[in-house]
Amino acid sequence: MDKVVTCVAPVNIAVIKYWGKRDEHLILPLNDSVSLTLDCDQMHTKTSIIAGPLINEDSVWLNGQIMSIERNERLKKCFDLIRNLIKIQKGKNSQEEKWKIKVCSENNFPTAAGLASSAAGYACLVYTLANAFGLVNKDLPSIARQGSGSACRSIYGGFVQWTAGVDDQGYDSTAVQIAADTHWPEMRIIILVVNDSKKKTSSTVGMKQAVKTSELLKYRIQKCVPERTKEIIQAITDKNFEKFAEITMRDSNQFHAICLDTYPPCVYLNQVSHEIISFVHDYNEATGQVKVAYTFDAGPNAFLFIQQNDLSLFMSELVNVFPTVQPNSSYLRGIVSTLPNNIKPYGFKSKEKDLLKYIMVTKLGSGPKCVDDHLLNSDGTLKSRIESIEKN
Amino acid sequence: MDKVVTCVAPVNIAVIKYWGKRDEHLILPLNDSVSLTLDCDQMHTKTSIIAGPLINEDSVWLNGQIMSIERNERLKKCFDLIRNLIKIQKGKNSQEEKWKIKVCSENNFPTAAGLASSAAGYACLVYTLANAFGLVNKDLPSIARQGSGSACRSIYGGFVQWTAGVDDQGYDSTAVQIAADTHWPEMRIIILVVNDSKKKTSSTVGMKQAVKTSELLKYRIQKCVPERTKEIIQAITDKNFEKFAEITMRDSNQFHAICLDTYPPCVYLNQVSHEIISFVHDYNEATGQVKVAYTFDAGPNAFLFIQQNDLSLFMSELVNVFPTVQPNSSYLRGIVSTLPNNIKPYGFKSKEKDLLKYIMVTKLGSGPKCVDDHLLNSDGTLKSRIESIEKN
Repeated sequence: MDKVVTCVAPVNIAVIKYWGKRDEHLILPLNDSVSLTLDCDQMHTKTSIIAGPLINEDSVWLNGQIMSIERNERLKKCFDLIRNLIKIQKGKNSQEEKWKIKVCSENNFPTAAGLASSAAGYACLVYTLANAFGLVNKDLPSIARQGSGSACRSIYGGFVQWTAGVDDQGYDSTAVQIAADTHWPEMRIIILVVNDSKKKTSSTVGMKQAVKTSELLKYRIQKCVPERTKEIIQAITDKNFEKFAEITMRDSNQFHAICLDTYPPCVYLNQVSHEIISFVHDYNEATGQVKVAYTFDAGPNAFLFIQQNDLSLFMSELVNVFPTVQPNSSYLRGIVSTLPNNIKPYGFKSKEKDLLKYIMVTKLGSGPKCVDDHLLNSDGTLKSRIESIEKN
Repeated sequence: MDKVVTCVAPVNIAVIKYWGKRDEHLILPLNDSVSLTLDCDQMHTKTSIIAGPLINEDSVWLNGQIMSIERNERLKKCFDLIRNLIKIQKGKNSQEEKWKIKVCSENNFPTAAGLASSAAGYACLVYTLANAFGLVNKDLPSIARQGSGSACRSIYGGFVQWTAGVDDQGYDSTAVQIAADTHWPEMRIIILVVNDSKKKTSSTVGMKQAVKTSELLKYRIQKCVPERTKEIIQAITDKNFEKFAEITMRDSNQFHAICLDTYPPCVYLNQVSHEIISFVHDYNEATGQVKVAYTFDAGPNAFLFIQQNDLSLFMSELVNVFPTVQPNSSYLRGIVSTLPNNIKPYGFKSKEKDLLKYIMVTKLGSGPKCVDDHLLNSDGTLKSRIESIEKN
């Protein structure tokens, strides 16, 4: 090859949450999950790969720092699985399986913000490797899954279901697209990045503890999730926003209820998260309709769903309730249109300033894609902007 | 009668939580609950009653304020049930059923602190009425229950179980003593009153919403509570503190998980509550044993359980972690012994000052009892300390 291949892959936000593995090693989940894939234009991981006889060792650079592949079991596994796929698809006599690979990867959003970057990261790694080696795509979700469970959902755009499956080897645990992003183009996602410094239990540890100790998780898996998954797929198919919104909020709350039922309890929401939850319910009550929904992953940041027509009125109330000392140009990011001038339609009381770091508005996306703006030069060296870090 | 009868009744703290009614009117619970009755010496409701032909109307004074019996359905019901019991026990020709009753009641702990006062209040009302009219006691828990569900548990001392029962009329839903306070005299209860100004959903509304919307509550009622109730009764019988503590903490967490699974979610714990939870788990981990347990009702205040031998060391760490600008004489209340001088055995980091209003240490108690220090004069007038309020 000896040619740089570069792809971007999106973040996905689960509305039916994945929490609990039936196989720790293969990363097989105990229940189905459903997610929305976000647009790469606002948030993505970008990965450049070069491989060939001239590359003398495997290496992975992430956000300008070199990673140890040997010490990172999941990263190592993805390399092994891709090489195995090369052998299967290209034949035993292909030399490509033996080529060393150099990977350079960057997130265009702050990892420190606690926005799950591993899903986009592993999806991008696997997607880029597949493109670099000309592999066909059907096995990509299951390889990405073994890097980071929810990464398998970032392989597709729009609305995606990750089926739990029952097979011991996980052959039936894969991601499938429910509907493309173009099915519901009015959907907007608002990310509220919350100021928080607390160290939280990692989701790997948190879900392991939950499986071991939460009695309620059993019922969630057996009874609640199967019903909800069916219902939310129907709501998505029908573009029934109110139904979609209610199931989303209920499932976020139930997921955090399971975390609290874990022993010792895992707490991912903070006071600001709870103020956002109350605000969304109050806003919906004030409008007399379910206009906005929230969901929270294993952290305090909120992901809100709203339709384009309702966006600017809601945003003006949101900025009023969660004010900032920042200029709007840095506080509001992504695809925000101009806010209606000083409208506070429902007159909610402002909270103290800077409870939020920033607000990012984005939309649905179509999944990973190849791009031309590489992070590596064709001789395998890192492009200048991060080269200084490599030299140190 | 025309003689003042005065009783005190205790607060009780549930370790297996009551949440959800199977009959709103009769106040019949969906699941069994288990509680510890606290000593009246530290916290109690005191109630004085005078009744007789010379009293010209029913009236209830609570903490110096007159209550409207007509507008308070539950209060009215307790009066009706007691009069009905008089008729049954004293015969149709007794005039006592027609006597008007004057009630004066006070809590010796701040109601504003959010410590459930209605349980002690209704237990005291019913117990005092029964003593004033010389009624036998077997029906008292079910009458108190119809004032405030958990009040039935405050009729007995020590460890108490309130059985849910299955009878439509609730004849089998009553409180029974598991063990007297003397069975486990080393047990101490530490109440951490948390500074909080948030308006919370009342427990009546919260549990109604939970029954209607929480799917997890079904499983809790059918599966979790029956097992836990059996296990905690065994732990109490065996005086197995570690087992008792673990079940207590798990049930508190599960109860708050159910509140979060309610739609819209009910949130009773705040950031300080969560810091207390973390501190207790950290403390237990540091000692290598489960020395302390927490439980939280429908509010942010913590109730900790610990045995006498472990109290002073824990208290010294607690006061270090949750410091105050107050002198210890007002910060530490109840049966605190002197703290070991400046010992911080595990060196936890101090949090910001005055997250807690005060700390109350108490022990198990033997239940309601009659006392001589009345709140009413024998002519039915309120004693001087509250008379001024009556005149206004």
